[in-house]
Amino acid sequence: MQMALDLASRGKGRTSPNPMVGAVVVKEDKVIATGYHRKAGTAHAEAAALKKAGAGAKGATLYVNLEPCCHTAKKTPPCTKAVIQAGIKEVVTAMIDPNPMVSGKGLKELRKAGITTRTGIMKEAAQKLNEVFIKHITREWPFVTLKVAQSIDGRIATAGGESKWITGTEARERVHKLRNEVDALLVGIGTVKADNPSLDCRVPGGRDPYRIIVDSRLDISLNSRVLKHDDGKTIIAATGKADKNKLDILFQRGISVLIIKEKSGRVDLNSLMTELGKLDITSVMIEGGSSIAASALAEKIVDKVMFFTAPKIIGGVDAVPSIGGKSPALLRDALKLKDMKVFKLGEDILIEGYIAY
Amino acid sequence: MQMALDLASRGKGRTSPNPMVGAVVVKEDKVIATGYHRKAGTAHAEAAALKKAGAGAKGATLYVNLEPCCHTAKKTPPCTKAVIQAGIKEVVTAMIDPNPMVSGKGLKELRKAGITTRTGIMKEAAQKLNEVFIKHITREWPFVTLKVAQSIDGRIATAGGESKWITGTEARERVHKLRNEVDALLVGIGTVKADNPSLDCRVPGGRDPYRIIVDSRLDISLNSRVLKHDDGKTIIAATGKADKNKLDILFQRGISVLIIKEKSGRVDLNSLMTELGKLDITSVMIEGGSSIAASALAEKIVDKVMFFTAPKIIGGVDAVPSIGGKSPALLRDALKLKDMKVFKLGEDILIEGYIAY
Repeated sequence: MQMALDLASRGKGRTSPNPMVGAVVVKEDKVIATGYHRKAGTAHAEAAALKKAGAGAKGATLYVNLEPCCHTAKKTPPCTKAVIQAGIKEVVTAMIDPNPMVSGKGLKELRKAGITTRTGIMKEAAQKLNEVFIKHITREWPFVTLKVAQSIDGRIATAGGESKWITGTEARERVHKLRNEVDALLVGIGTVKADNPSLDCRVPGGRDPYRIIVDSRLDISLNSRVLKHDDGKTIIAATGKADKNKLDILFQRGISVLIIKEKSGRVDLNSLMTELGKLDITSVMIEGGSSIAASALAEKIVDKVMFFTAPKIIGGVDAVPSIGGKSPALLRDALKLKDMKVFKLGEDILIEGYIAY
Repeated sequence: MQMALDLASRGKGRTSPNPMVGAVVVKEDKVIATGYHRKAGTAHAEAAALKKAGAGAKGATLYVNLEPCCHTAKKTPPCTKAVIQAGIKEVVTAMIDPNPMVSGKGLKELRKAGITTRTGIMKEAAQKLNEVFIKHITREWPFVTLKVAQSIDGRIATAGGESKWITGTEARERVHKLRNEVDALLVGIGTVKADNPSLDCRVPGGRDPYRIIVDSRLDISLNSRVLKHDDGKTIIAATGKADKNKLDILFQRGISVLIIKEKSGRVDLNSLMTELGKLDITSVMIEGGSSIAASALAEKIVDKVMFFTAPKIIGGVDAVPSIGGKSPALLRDALKLKDMKVFKLGEDILIEGYIAY
């Protein structure tokens, strides 16, 4: 199963909106074929492995990190049929497919065909690997990661607004790797104005994610770097207050503008998540700034946080805090993190955790 | 040498203003006696070990983490004499005594008496163990640790001022252990007003450190918990602006008030450090709040920082930041930490480092 998980993870950043899946065909204690889902639209892991195994798959055991699919809603044929036809004797899975269209029906179909099934092997690791897919398929919202680059004392910029660079090379490289893996980046208009970022992915052989700018009134400058991409992957989330003329200009330049309902005069982030989910954007990384981070947490759209923390102290009540907005009056109303982990990244540390709302 | 260091560390928190020293007498590859400096005023490590070794010390090797002393300014006789008289053949030390009164003279005296000497063995570990002693004996200031208990986003209290408790049991126990080891705690008047702390050490068998309150104008309420101790270990650092009546009352209650020169209307922390150094207070832990932390960093009195960081997000531009004061305009003027280390403490983490001014 570890081998299947390792194979699965090779598809990271390329399988969306599908899950990452790896499959291993074992016969007489020997691996006779492996496969993984490389990219949405290409063969599923099971099909790839079974094709390689050929006639050898007869009587073999198939290890796969996710329950094989049994529906025909996708471009690829259901894997259960392929498994049955190949003459597989036993199927071992790490987890049931959370997709409501599958959710146990795949295994049921296999058992009906006389195949032995076992599930739950390395379940936790399998769930973690596909946390994005699970969130999107069950909640129909993207899995949202809030990324912060801060000093130890929780500042993302000096009073003068300087934020480049708080963290070191390794941390910034990791961020570009993450950009290569998520479907979309999201920033507030404040960050576009302050930093004028390109929001691209500088990993060799990488691909740019969607760029989402939350900008209620379309305050964005038409000269902003983020508008210079011509890949059709820039989306501005605005409200009914958006400047109509600018809307036309942006439309002509191929920039999508989503008009989202308002909440306290701003883009309602819950509605935005619903829209992004419909667009099959399964994962979003929020990259700043202080206000959008606070709104995202307050509106409970954040699943995971990543605080890249540099060995620096900025200090000052006038410096920009990593999380803006309004503080809760009581400490018990502070957000709690679960499964907090700390990693060393060059001179910096990365503190990761999941929000326990 | 590791054994000598381990023995030395048993004296932690009890040897001030002396260093922690451990000694091991080895003869024919066998440890024949050990000793350590238990408490200021009691036998030095070498003397203790040599006494146990008795006549057996003749021709033996002495391992000791600090160069033996050769001066007679202390209550205890110089160790070099004892080493020579015992007939020790070789002395191995981790580091030269940074005390200007010794600084190599001890080893020189030993060599003059025909004893072989080696030094520098496990020097780094030895310097770290006695970082407090080294700072005090060379700079004549206490070694200052800034302790912060914060959320991941660098807040020490909500907008409502609630700060109890951001961190969990293990972190708080560690703080009490530290209180048992340092000579003095230091807080600003803001913390006394906001939290009314007792500033005691709740370790079974522990002892309370000095309590230093920085309070320029003597704003402290006479009912404050920190003034209820009758051990004569409470010191208020004020300026010439201090209320004279209150000064008299405090004096009658056995509270020391140090009148320190002003700097921008506040207690000049550099002068305060000089005064504390003279009082043989070799180590100080700053325990809050936001303003005093910022002043201490700005005035460059801090040697080490300890950020106890809880898996919580408080957020809000109105929350209390761990480091107050004024932010530098430029990022390159932010303070940098060296030798940053991260430890897990229950659900919290402890980020430790030294300030690189």
